[in-house]
Amino acid sequence: MPETLPDNSVGLVTPKTQTFETPLALDCGRTLPRFELIYETYGELNPARDNAVLVCHALSGDHHAAGYHSLSDRKPGWWEAAIGPGKPLDTNRFFIVAPNNLGGCKGSTGPASINPETGRPYGADFPIVTVRDWVRSQALLADALGIAQWAAVVGGSLGGMQVMQWAIDLPERLRHAVVIAAAPKLSAQNIAFNEVARQAIMSDPDFHAGHFYEHGTVPRRGLMLARMLGHITYLSDSAMREKFGRELREGRLNFGFDVEFQVESYLRYQGQSFVDRFDANTYLLMTKALDYFDPAAEFDHDLAAAFRRAQARFLVISFTSDWRFSPERSREIVRALLDADRAVSYAEIEATQGHDAFLLPIPQYMKVLGSYMRGVAAERAS
Amino acid sequence: MPETLPDNSVGLVTPKTQTFETPLALDCGRTLPRFELIYETYGELNPARDNAVLVCHALSGDHHAAGYHSLSDRKPGWWEAAIGPGKPLDTNRFFIVAPNNLGGCKGSTGPASINPETGRPYGADFPIVTVRDWVRSQALLADALGIAQWAAVVGGSLGGMQVMQWAIDLPERLRHAVVIAAAPKLSAQNIAFNEVARQAIMSDPDFHAGHFYEHGTVPRRGLMLARMLGHITYLSDSAMREKFGRELREGRLNFGFDVEFQVESYLRYQGQSFVDRFDANTYLLMTKALDYFDPAAEFDHDLAAAFRRAQARFLVISFTSDWRFSPERSREIVRALLDADRAVSYAEIEATQGHDAFLLPIPQYMKVLGSYMRGVAAERAS
Repeated sequence: MPETLPDNSVGLVTPKTQTFETPLALDCGRTLPRFELIYETYGELNPARDNAVLVCHALSGDHHAAGYHSLSDRKPGWWEAAIGPGKPLDTNRFFIVAPNNLGGCKGSTGPASINPETGRPYGADFPIVTVRDWVRSQALLADALGIAQWAAVVGGSLGGMQVMQWAIDLPERLRHAVVIAAAPKLSAQNIAFNEVARQAIMSDPDFHAGHFYEHGTVPRRGLMLARMLGHITYLSDSAMREKFGRELREGRLNFGFDVEFQVESYLRYQGQSFVDRFDANTYLLMTKALDYFDPAAEFDHDLAAAFRRAQARFLVISFTSDWRFSPERSREIVRALLDADRAVSYAEIEATQGHDAFLLPIPQYMKVLGSYMRGVAAERAS
Repeated sequence: MPETLPDNSVGLVTPKTQTFETPLALDCGRTLPRFELIYETYGELNPARDNAVLVCHALSGDHHAAGYHSLSDRKPGWWEAAIGPGKPLDTNRFFIVAPNNLGGCKGSTGPASINPETGRPYGADFPIVTVRDWVRSQALLADALGIAQWAAVVGGSLGGMQVMQWAIDLPERLRHAVVIAAAPKLSAQNIAFNEVARQAIMSDPDFHAGHFYEHGTVPRRGLMLARMLGHITYLSDSAMREKFGRELREGRLNFGFDVEFQVESYLRYQGQSFVDRFDANTYLLMTKALDYFDPAAEFDHDLAAAFRRAQARFLVISFTSDWRFSPERSREIVRALLDADRAVSYAEIEATQGHDAFLLPIPQYMKVLGSYMRGVAAERAS
């Protein structure tokens, strides 16, 4: 808890909620009769309304990207490293908008929301949403905020996928696309990890086929396992080695099944604390959105053809030790953009932290992002 | 089911059981009052008794390494690729011994065996066994079979770890050590995957703290998850891509949580079928033996110092796409052996199949192994 908030933080922030009463048609064929998006904003929209930046979150992220909700907060928002006065997403220059995605569990309409058709929580009946659905709903939020065109849409991991979809689906509505630690689609291995996570949740007897709210239960064991597994894929082998090695918590083997190695202790803690702040149905939805993401599919699996629709200029960033979405996956994106004759800058950041690197204040990374964003701020709206 | 068995198979085999009535002191400090080892043998022990080869199995392996138990068997033993007349472990030259490890679930004394002290199954009370305990028990089996010295001890993965421990602990009792797709100890990431698997099993309500036999249950969900996760680490990303890509089982997205991608179908099948043939307590024990394996630990973490006790000559084999125990881990073993002035050959096999490669009849691999083993057969016992 910071006694006084750091100077380079956006400080205290309050989430806002936008309600949409017009039905939203989704990729799955179903329609949401109404929905809400919770979001935060940092900085000021300028009179020309051309300095707005959309920040898209990843699997377990939310709208609280920067700052503090109260002086007693233990931690700031998830991208405090990059958002704030003088930071790469400089709130002295930009008006940053960070929504919680549809299907989320932090205030936007999702599985725990009341289904107006039944008067009970959606639970497993909440429709499976896609990255494209998120882009649609975020565009409606932009409309509501009077933002015709984003100066940039920015995101890491699943957030980076939303950025690509924005550039392809609504090309006139963004000038820059910043795609960090992402992939043009999941590999079979990526899907496999997601499937084990889903099976962990769905096979938990407390899941009750997704209607656990009404049973007064939470599939804690399953969600904990899913998160533990996720964490392994977020960290690199070398990061785990540096962080934990084979350190024993009590300095000796106990010949039992309680925590022995530090890495076990870390994973159990991460799993347990996640259960208290995340919803199992949302976790399932997020993994499905990841699995389904494949913008090239409707262009005969030609990613360059998909990108030919884009008008934005791109910055693509990857991290050397990321094995979830390795630099090779980012290079696929870059090659397709070049094949499509789009403007693209690419930075492969030397980092030991694995996929998690995209959330961290790695100097070289912050420098590349900050330098690019200063260019975005300097140019005039087209 | 083969109508007639292939010529290069050892054909029909019958497991044998050896009972040991002398108490066995274990690394954990406990003692097994008595125990049995089930094992198979292929080929004939020569009059000099110097052509015996011990095959050590990996996590989910057993004593059925080659041949068929009956003409109606769907599949041969797990290492049919390498064991048989004219094969690398040539049963015309060698007398192969393949035991099921202590703590196993295929006939050797393990968690499902009756604890003579209680008259009930051991369950979770079965002691945690180490690689060193296995070597001790296998040495007693060698004594019982009248084998003073193995021509070679051979194994892949966890089996390769037993080979190293044999060479260090009982240096006079083997002439050659063949270590395939192994590591000198687990990394933090390896331990992390094991920990998620263990948590999946132990958090299954049907686990009943390891005493599920008496409750008439099986922790199916947990063991299935553990196996699904294991399979991801056995296959390389590229092998998964080649095998499944992003193929959809029904050719289209269903916007639901049933199986959609082929890789999901494969994993669920692998998980489900494993539950019918493996014991959850044994799975826990095997993962702990992996975590604990660290022969350098008692030599001040100097692996070369550990290997200085060895007298065997070594063949070390790794596979390029193995990310569970990557070639780099095998090179650590080779470097330590060279530092210790031991004789070592090293082969890094180009293979796309990941860790699983060690079980497969990859021509280059079989050639390297066969050529080495012909040398072993040609030399006279020292």
